[in-house]
Amino acid sequence: MLAAYAARADPADPLSALNVGDIDPPEVPADWVQVNVRAAALNHHDIWSLRGVGLAADRLPMILGCDAAGVTDDGREVIIHAVINDPDFVGSDATYDPARSLLSERYPGTLAVAVRVPRANAIPKPPELSFAEAACLPTAWLTAYRMLFTQSGAKPGDTVLIQGAGGGVATALITLGRHAGLRVWVTSRDEARGARAVALGAHQAFPSGTRLPERVDAVMETVGAATWSHSINALRPGGTLVICGATSGDNPAKAELTKIFFKPLRVIGSTMGTRAELISLTQMLITTGVRPVIDRTLPLTDAAEGFAAMINGDVFGKIVVEP
Amino acid sequence: MLAAYAARADPADPLSALNVGDIDPPEVPADWVQVNVRAAALNHHDIWSLRGVGLAADRLPMILGCDAAGVTDDGREVIIHAVINDPDFVGSDATYDPARSLLSERYPGTLAVAVRVPRANAIPKPPELSFAEAACLPTAWLTAYRMLFTQSGAKPGDTVLIQGAGGGVATALITLGRHAGLRVWVTSRDEARGARAVALGAHQAFPSGTRLPERVDAVMETVGAATWSHSINALRPGGTLVICGATSGDNPAKAELTKIFFKPLRVIGSTMGTRAELISLTQMLITTGVRPVIDRTLPLTDAAEGFAAMINGDVFGKIVVEP
Amino acid sequence: MLAAYAARADPADPLSALNVGDIDPPEVPADWVQVNVRAAALNHHDIWSLRGVGLAADRLPMILGCDAAGVTDDGREVIIHAVINDPDFVGSDATYDPARSLLSERYPGTLAVAVRVPRANAIPKPPELSFAEAACLPTAWLTAYRMLFTQSGAKPGDTVLIQGAGGGVATALITLGRHAGLRVWVTSRDEARGARAVALGAHQAFPSGTRLPERVDAVMETVGAATWSHSINALRPGGTLVICGATSGDNPAKAELTKIFFKPLRVIGSTMGTRAELISLTQMLITTGVRPVIDRTLPLTDAAEGFAAMINGDVFGKIVVEP
Amino acid sequence: MLAAYAARADPADPLSALNVGDIDPPEVPADWVQVNVRAAALNHHDIWSLRGVGLAADRLPMILGCDAAGVTDDGREVIIHAVINDPDFVGSDATYDPARSLLSERYPGTLAVAVRVPRANAIPKPPELSFAEAACLPTAWLTAYRMLFTQSGAKPGDTVLIQGAGGGVATALITLGRHAGLRVWVTSRDEARGARAVALGAHQAFPSGTRLPERVDAVMETVGAATWSHSINALRPGGTLVICGATSGDNPAKAELTKIFFKPLRVIGSTMGTRAELISLTQMLITTGVRPVIDRTLPLTDAAEGFAAMINGDVFGKIVVEP
Repeated sequence: MLAAYAARADPADPLSALNVGDIDPPEVPADWVQVNVRAAALNHHDIWSLRGVGLAADRLPMILGCDAAGVTDDGREVIIHAVINDPDFVGSDATYDPARSLLSERYPGTLAVAVRVPRANAIPKPPELSFAEAACLPTAWLTAYRMLFTQSGAKPGDTVLIQGAGGGVATALITLGRHAGLRVWVTSRDEARGARAVALGAHQAFPSGTRLPERVDAVMETVGAATWSHSINALRPGGTLVICGATSGDNPAKAELTKIFFKPLRVIGSTMGTRAELISLTQMLITTGVRPVIDRTLPLTDAAEGFAAMINGDVFGKIVVEP
Repeated sequence: MLAAYAARADPADPLSALNVGDIDPPEVPADWVQVNVRAAALNHHDIWSLRGVGLAADRLPMILGCDAAGVTDDGREVIIHAVINDPDFVGSDATYDPARSLLSERYPGTLAVAVRVPRANAIPKPPELSFAEAACLPTAWLTAYRMLFTQSGAKPGDTVLIQGAGGGVATALITLGRHAGLRVWVTSRDEARGARAVALGAHQAFPSGTRLPERVDAVMETVGAATWSHSINALRPGGTLVICGATSGDNPAKAELTKIFFKPLRVIGSTMGTRAELISLTQMLITTGVRPVIDRTLPLTDAAEGFAAMINGDVFGKIVVEP
Repeated sequence: MLAAYAARADPADPLSALNVGDIDPPEVPADWVQVNVRAAALNHHDIWSLRGVGLAADRLPMILGCDAAGVTDDGREVIIHAVINDPDFVGSDATYDPARSLLSERYPGTLAVAVRVPRANAIPKPPELSFAEAACLPTAWLTAYRMLFTQSGAKPGDTVLIQGAGGGVATALITLGRHAGLRVWVTSRDEARGARAVALGAHQAFPSGTRLPERVDAVMETVGAATWSHSINALRPGGTLVICGATSGDNPAKAELTKIFFKPLRVIGSTMGTRAELISLTQMLITTGVRPVIDRTLPLTDAAEGFAAMINGDVFGKIVVEP
Repeated sequence: MLAAYAARADPADPLSALNVGDIDPPEVPADWVQVNVRAAALNHHDIWSLRGVGLAADRLPMILGCDAAGVTDDGREVIIHAVINDPDFVGSDATYDPARSLLSERYPGTLAVAVRVPRANAIPKPPELSFAEAACLPTAWLTAYRMLFTQSGAKPGDTVLIQGAGGGVATALITLGRHAGLRVWVTSRDEARGARAVALGAHQAFPSGTRLPERVDAVMETVGAATWSHSINALRPGGTLVICGATSGDNPAKAELTKIFFKPLRVIGSTMGTRAELISLTQMLITTGVRPVIDRTLPLTDAAEGFAAMINGDVFGKIVVEP
C-alpha cells in the first residue's frame, strides 16, 4: 500500500532517508481496526525518526506519522489517538504506561492510505471538524491541551508564559490559552514570530530571556536548557512549570534545585495526552470556534516537500497530507 | 454618617423597613481599616435582611450591603471582600470558617459613605476596573467564579448547565463560563430570559425541565427543590452539581440519594469565595475584557428605588449606588 | 459446569430461588480470558439478584457472584475486577462508564468453577494473599478503599465517621481507615456491634443518631435516608460525605440542600472502584499486614448455607466458597 | 531576657558565634502575642544562621530557634508556627508568600524565655502532647507531613523512597509514612543508620545509589545533587519527587529534563507547611500514638552542648531545650 516510510536513517540528511511508495501492509495484532486515512499531518517527530532518533534499525522500514483522521471499515469517522498502550497496562492515564509507544515508533504510522490501531485508539471525529482539521490534533494540540488544562493548574485570569513562540505546541498553547480566559505571554528570539504570536492571540510577546514585568502563575516549557533558569525565575512562589520537550538540550547550566524547593515551585513533565483529553480538545474547538492553522495541504506523494519546508523553518501551522 | 440601614424587619413589606439617613459610625475592632465607599451594589441578600431573614432583631439597626469598592484612608483603591472571618480561624479557605459572617450580618455593611473591614478584606482594585464595575464583583460574581473554576472541575470544552437564567449569579456564570471555553447551556421558565442569556453568551437556552439533547459535565444550581431532579438526571456519570442557593426551597420531592451513588455524581456546596478567588476574578475580567452588566446607577439616597426594581423583577444586571 | 445461579427470582424467599448445579458454560465475547475459580465470596448483591432486584427475568438463568480469585488457563494467579466496561468507553475511571455492569448482572458471575472476563479484569494476585483472602476484596473492600482514599479527601489525623458498624463495607472502612492514620468513629444501633467495631480498630463507637463530641472531616454513608440528616449535621464546614449505598432508602425526611451549600459541604457518590485502586488495595494489605476477616469457608455446593447466614445477620466478615 | 543568639557569624566555627545570655526584649509589631516558652528544639537552620547563611549582618544580634511550645499571657497552651507572613499576603498557602520568613530570620526566634508572634501563629497545643513533644513539630515534622500528605499524592499501599535516612526530616518521614499505610523504603550511606531507620518503621533500607527491586510511586528528596539522578531513575512513570532541601548541593551532574517530561514525572518543591497542616500533624500523632524521638533535653543555658552534638552527627532525634 502507498505510504511514506523510513527504510534507513540519516542523521545528516533526513530527507534522503524518506521513501514514498508501495510497502507491504504491516502486521499488527488481529483485533486492531483499520482506519482508511483521509488526512494526516507532519510532525518533527517524523524528522527525528528519519534521523534515527528513537527508531532502532531493526524496526526499519517504518511507516512514519502519528497524526491522522479517517474512516473505519465499518464507516465511522475517527481521529487517531497515537499513544499505543500495552494491553495489560493498568492505570487511569495512558501516558503513564511504561511500555507505551507512539505510532511510527513500534507500530506503523499514519502517513499511508490506511493505518491499523487498537479499537480504543479510534476516537469519534465530530462532524464539525474536517478531516484535515482533525488530523492536526493528536500530537501538538493534544500535548498543549493537557499541559494547560490537566497539568498547569492555571485558572481563568492567571498568567501563563510560553517559552518560544515558534513551534507547533507553542502555537496550540497560545490559541487554547487565549480561549480559556488565561493571560498569555510568549517569549521569542525573533520579533516577527513574537508579532505572529500576538496576532494568534497572545496578550504580549517578549524577547527571549527578558525580565518580565511581573511573576507568572505557570510556564509552558518546550525549549529546555536554554530557557530553564528564565522559566524558574519567572514563576511566582507556588507556580507551576510544565515541560513537554527540551529542543535546546537536557542539561541547563543550573538545575535550580534550591529555587524549586525554596520558592517553592512545581515542575510537571507532560507528554502527549489521553483519549479523554483528545475528546475534550475536539469539544473545545467546537465550543470556541477555534481551528488549527493549516500551513498547506499536499498529496501524500509530496510529503518530502512538506518535510523540507519544516526543516527550513518555513512553516506557520500544520502541514496536512492526503493519500 | 449617611447609610442605608434596617432599623426593623418586615417580612411582608421589606421596603418599608429600609431607612436611608444619618446613623452613628459603627464600632468595629480597632485594627480594622476604613474604606470610603465610591460605589456599592445591591443584592437580594439585603432584601432578605429587610425581611428579617438571617438578621436577628438584637443586631438592629444594621447598615445593609455586602458589595463595594472605594478608597482607604491612606489612598489605596480597594474592593471589599465581604466574608469576615474569626481572627482565630485556621484554614486555607475563608468560606469554611464556621464563625464567618457576611458584611451586614454581624458587622455594618457597605451601603454607606464608609465601611470598616479587617485589613485583609480590602483587596487592591486594579485601575482597569471602574469603582462601579468593581462594586459588582464581591458577591454574585465571586460566587460564580468559585462555582465554575474551583468547584465544578469543568475543563474547556465541557458542557455546563445553568439552572435558571435570570438571577445575578446565573448572569455571571453565563458570562464567565463562555469566556473560559466552556459550552454554556441554560434553562429558563421564560423565553425572553432564555434569549437574553443567549445574547449574553450562552450557547443554547432550554425551557425549564426539558430533556436535554445530551448529558452534561456539570450543573450550576441556584434554584433548589424545583430543579433538583432535573439537575441530577441531566448529569453524566462522574458529573458534578455545584449548588450555591435554593431559592425554590430546601427539600425536593426526591432527594435522589441512589442516583448520587449509583450514577455516580458529586454534589458540591459553595458559598461566596476567597480573597484569592476575588483577585483571580478581577484578573479574568481584565484578561478577557468582560465587564459586569450594570442595570442602572443611583445615588445612595435613592436605594429604595433600586430595591423596588429588584423586588419587581425589573432588573437586568447589577444596580450600583453611589454615596 | 458447576455453578450457583438464579433460574428465577423470589422477592419473598430469595434462598428458594438459588440453584447449585450444572449449567451450560456461558457465551461471552471470544477475546475474554477464562479464570478457574479457586475462591469466591458471597455478597448481599447476590441476595438482591435472587430477589430480582437489578436482574431482569430475560437474563435468567444467571450465575451469581462478583468476588473471586483464581488461575487463568496460562497459569497466572489473578483477582477478578468485577466492573465490566463497554469496550468503547473512553474515560479514565471505569466506574463512570454509563454502560458498565457488574459480573452477575449482564455477564455470568464468579460462583462457579470458572468465570470468563475481559483480559483487563484479571488483575495479578500477589503471592502474599491467599486465594480466599483475595476473593474477599473486589466488592466491599474495593468500595471502601475508593471511598476513603480517592473520594473523601481525608488526610492522616482527620476524623472519619462511619455510619452503621455492621456491613461488609463498614468493616473494611474501619480496618483500612485505622491503618491509614485516620481517627475512626462509628455509629451503631447495637452496642455489641459497636464493641466489635472498636475491637476491629475503630477509635470510638457511638449509638446511632447521637450528638458527637466534635464535628468530623468526613462521613462514610451506606445507610441513606435513616442517617442522612445526622451525617450532614456531623460534618464540619468544608467536610465531605461519601455515599456508596442507601440500605434504609433513597429519600430522607429532609434533603438538607441549604446545609450543603451554606455550611458548605461536599457529597460524593461512589460505587465499586477501578483496577488501579484494586491493585493499590492489595498493596496496602501487604504493606500493613491487614487481612479481611473471613467468617467461614464453605464448598460451593453449600452456598445456600452461607446465604442463609447472611440473611439471618449471623455473620462477621466475609463468607468464602470454594468450587 | 535569657536567650540563645548570634551576635556575629562564623562560617568556620559556628559554635563560637553562639551566645547564651541576657538580651533586650525584641521589638515586634504591637498586635503580636507573647508566648512564654516551655520547650524549644534545635535545628540545623540555627547552625546555618550561626554560619551567616541566610542571616544578614545587619540583623544581628538575632535570637535563634524556630521550634517551640509554650503558654500565652492569657494562659493558652500553644505550639509556635514559625512561618511569618506579610500581613497583606493574599493566598491560601502560607508557604507561597514571597515575603514570608521563618522565626529567627527577620524576627527573633524561639530559643528564649519568651517569643512574640502574630496571633495566628500560636496554634492550640493539644493536652495529649507534652511541651517537649510539641516543640519538636513545627519545622522538621511539619515539613515531612506536608511532603507526604499534601504534596506526594501517595495513597495507602504506595511505595515511598526516602533518600538519606539520617536527618530530622527523614526520621519524621519514616515514622509518618509508616503510620499512614505507605510502604517506606530508605537509602543510607551508612548501614547502622539504615538499620535504625528500619527500627523506626521503614520496611526496607538500601545502600545509597543502589538499584531498587522495583520502581517507586514517590521519592522524598532532601539530599539534592548527590542523589538527584538516582531519585529520577527510581520513579515510575507518573511518579512524584518531592524536594525540601539539597544538603549536597544545588546542581546535579545531570538535570534530567528529558526524563522528567518523557517518563513523565512531577517534581514538587516544598518548604515548611501551613497552620492547618501543623494542626493535622498534631491530630495524627494523637490518633496513631506516634511521638517524636527526643535525643536529649537540656537547659537553654546548655544549648551549645546540643549544637555541638548536632555538628558531630552524634544525635538521633530532636534536642529539646528548656528555658
